[in-house]
Amino acid sequence: MINEQAYELGSKRSVIREIFEYAKKRGEEIGQENVFDFSIGNPSVPAPAKVNETIERLLRETPSVALHGYTSAQGDKEVRAKIAANLNFRFGVGVSADNLYMTCGAAASLCAALHAICQSGDEMIVFAPYFTEYKVFVEGAGAKLVTVGANADLLPSITEFERAITPKTKGVIVNSPNNPSGVVYGEKTLQALAAVLRKKQEEYGAPIYLISDEPYRELVYDGEAVPFPMNYYENTLSCYSWSKALSLPGERIGYVAVSPKAKESEKLYAAVCGAGRKLGYVCAPALFQRVAAECDGLTGDLSVYKRNRDLLYAALKGYGFSCVYPSGAFYLFMQSPEADAYAFCERAKKYELLFVPSDDFGLKSYVRIAYCVDTETIKRALPKFKELAKEYGL
Amino acid sequence: MINEQAYELGSKRSVIREIFEYAKKRGEEIGQENVFDFSIGNPSVPAPAKVNETIERLLRETPSVALHGYTSAQGDKEVRAKIAANLNFRFGVGVSADNLYMTCGAAASLCAALHAICQSGDEMIVFAPYFTEYKVFVEGAGAKLVTVGANADLLPSITEFERAITPKTKGVIVNSPNNPSGVVYGEKTLQALAAVLRKKQEEYGAPIYLISDEPYRELVYDGEAVPFPMNYYENTLSCYSWSKALSLPGERIGYVAVSPKAKESEKLYAAVCGAGRKLGYVCAPALFQRVAAECDGLTGDLSVYKRNRDLLYAALKGYGFSCVYPSGAFYLFMQSPEADAYAFCERAKKYELLFVPSDDFGLKSYVRIAYCVDTETIKRALPKFKELAKEYGL
Repeated sequence: MINEQAYELGSKRSVIREIFEYAKKRGEEIGQENVFDFSIGNPSVPAPAKVNETIERLLRETPSVALHGYTSAQGDKEVRAKIAANLNFRFGVGVSADNLYMTCGAAASLCAALHAICQSGDEMIVFAPYFTEYKVFVEGAGAKLVTVGANADLLPSITEFERAITPKTKGVIVNSPNNPSGVVYGEKTLQALAAVLRKKQEEYGAPIYLISDEPYRELVYDGEAVPFPMNYYENTLSCYSWSKALSLPGERIGYVAVSPKAKESEKLYAAVCGAGRKLGYVCAPALFQRVAAECDGLTGDLSVYKRNRDLLYAALKGYGFSCVYPSGAFYLFMQSPEADAYAFCERAKKYELLFVPSDDFGLKSYVRIAYCVDTETIKRALPKFKELAKEYGL
Repeated sequence: MINEQAYELGSKRSVIREIFEYAKKRGEEIGQENVFDFSIGNPSVPAPAKVNETIERLLRETPSVALHGYTSAQGDKEVRAKIAANLNFRFGVGVSADNLYMTCGAAASLCAALHAICQSGDEMIVFAPYFTEYKVFVEGAGAKLVTVGANADLLPSITEFERAITPKTKGVIVNSPNNPSGVVYGEKTLQALAAVLRKKQEEYGAPIYLISDEPYRELVYDGEAVPFPMNYYENTLSCYSWSKALSLPGERIGYVAVSPKAKESEKLYAAVCGAGRKLGYVCAPALFQRVAAECDGLTGDLSVYKRNRDLLYAALKGYGFSCVYPSGAFYLFMQSPEADAYAFCERAKKYELLFVPSDDFGLKSYVRIAYCVDTETIKRALPKFKELAKEYGL
């Protein structure tokens, strides 16, 4: 009688959520400090001080009705202009306020972008490993998820990508730095993807859109900058959220930027606005629109994540585990020493080590280790990892 | 190539937005103080002082990672428990935290409720006059909007309602105090609606849901309390937002409450959670979840709206206009002295009076006057209304 698909989505807990609940329960039994929970991608460093300072200043300086009132549906114009200016300064993309649609976070950004371009029968391509909710969002927009496999370095297989594109392909989702792998797509990868997309949209005579999911854009640790996909391909929609960079995941603030070079860019932007309206989220949270605009470009203390990454990656390699080198985000992707990642995760539980099997990310035989935790937690967990490696004879 | 429906929704400005933009432009020409803009339902009184005080206290007392971090998908458990307790205190409904799903505002509440119950081919009934976006939200959930007319007092025609229910009817949206009419549904109306719903769901052997849209729940001016629909009918989902009561429309914070007496209430709640997930808004804005829980039950200074209402209603009646007595919300619904409300609104523009023709609310020959403005603005506008009345020979 109700919508069964909605019921399924609401009643079936995600694997990550299962592990999270297990960690809480186990912590009550043996003490939280004895449970090593690497399951959740929740920033562990505080927001930059300027975030709370900006909130306090706005409360002092702005009359209540103006501060907490509606902004325009697509977001406050000054806010959008400021963010556009920052994007242009950093990436030289030539966007303006009228290319930006403010949203209540990364999920909303993706949904607005998908509902703007997709209709029933369309296909959206994702590259394994991919963030599990992509499937929910793509299907919610009426399209079908098509998965393309990865090479050994966990970068997308370009050959397989080209083969996967059909006349039904409406677009592809790219996520770099990647959740769950921590891999960053370099220039060459983006150029190769763009070349295939251009070839195929010419062949089929219809645009194929690149939706770039960029919440980890600023989280990179080896000095290299993350190439900005919009600079490599015209028909791009950049989906952003300040959740990770500013450590504000609960505050739900992000945007969709439509490339001014996209085919019929203004029409595409109007469709993003209309999708937001249909989905029920016009006017992103007003206070945090202004906070985000003021703090855009800042980050929490990334040196913590870098230290964690270095420590964990070196130790795990030393113990004999196979890991993909994670240049960004705060995830480490490790090969399971047995084919069944679920079984591996169960065995790790004996050592109170909790991480997520890769199957839900569209790839078998890996685990995702979220290292956005206290560095001390990692240090105390290392002997457990060592024992786990020994059990597998590594 | 893109989603044409989304493009339509994004490119076609609403009538209200058109008038709003006109007001801004006209204000630049002749001075904002000379334009009497009654088009927008934006609270004109500040948020209660406790709102900003609570924000400041939370910033002082709560570590950043906890304050700005993810809450659970359905909202912080303590927040939901507190709001449930307030609902029980005020209305004795017996809800718990697990009946509440926190959302990013009224539109999100409605969309989550609609997507939880509707599927393609369903019908949703609304009573004219109704909030224009209902059509967008209902169609976005795949259902068809069916409009039922009003009696002379602008309460729903119960006879017409009963005739409109078919085996395809999935539910009905009730909005009291009403936008755009300001009318409050009394006990008798709710009892009559519930009786029809019970009869019909027995006849068809399937639940028919009542979605109660309640952002104006606390905005009433004649001492009477607004009857709480969930107390009159079991299969009810209450959709709330603090936008109007706390004057926080920009902060996007509300909830869906599923009646614990609804058929398979837990399953229905799970469907609401799943709908929220599919629509991309799990975890409502975290800081304002806590602010709302602390300030729930407070309101801005409603005496301003009451004064405005009294002043405007008495004056307009005195000038010879026919008005529906508005017990709540901050809208006054006035009959157009000519059949074409658009023409009337155009003529009113000569006097710099701006209000919204009722056609988009599903009813002809009325205008909506939003009196959530400075009382001084109303006082200065009254002579203009008088001249307008004279022009029609009232």
